[in-house]
Amino acid sequence: MYTIKSRIWIEGEEGVFLGEGRIKILKTIIDEGSLSKAAKTLGMSYKKAWNLVNSINKNAASPIVITNTGGSGGGGTFITEYGLEMIHSFEKINKNCWDFLDKQLKEYQL
Amino acid sequence: MYTIKSRIWIEGEEGVFLGEGRIKILKTIIDEGSLSKAAKTLGMSYKKAWNLVNSINKNAASPIVITNTGGSGGGGTFITEYGLEMIHSFEKINKNCWDFLDKQLKEYQL
Repeated sequence: MYTIKSRIWIEGEEGVFLGEGRIKILKTIIDEGSLSKAAKTLGMSYKKAWNLVNSINKNAASPIVITNTGGSGGGGTFITEYGLEMIHSFEKINKNCWDFLDKQLKEYQL
Repeated sequence: MYTIKSRIWIEGEEGVFLGEGRIKILKTIIDEGSLSKAAKTLGMSYKKAWNLVNSINKNAASPIVITNTGGSGGGGTFITEYGLEMIHSFEKINKNCWDFLDKQLKEYQL
């Protein structure tokens, strides 16, 4: 009895844009409302989290993560509308890929 | 402009059965006719190659790699008919997965 597994990622002009780990950090930023809290929740250094977010934004067609520093409402890290759409699309495609591969496993009678 | 990439692997009862690296070692065994030559070609220790082959056979529904020690024709490592079919199926599914993901990228207008 075999099972088939997959890992997908999306690349932009300069390298990896989104993968499972990056989706996880974006979703944690949504939950926590700040990059430093998200990093702490994921047991990751702030520097590493910042580098990942920087790489996400650099490889995106439009900004994904926006950081407000200070202001009357205080600082905070936010995911753009475009970012939310990208998270949703990534997760849908990932799920569709799993379903496709399960069907392939049957089709090839493995 | 985004591209989407994937890595797939097949698991058996006890863990990974086939992935891209394992397919590569099986195909090199076919080319070289021996496990030690295949290991050398791939710049891998004999022990590591042997462990991979052992794990492939252990997780397969039927034997994939057979080693003949000595005999009038000398020793040698061979891939079974079932193994050849599995290599073919894996490569087809992998290619189909890439095509599927390219279509998904268009469908989601990324």
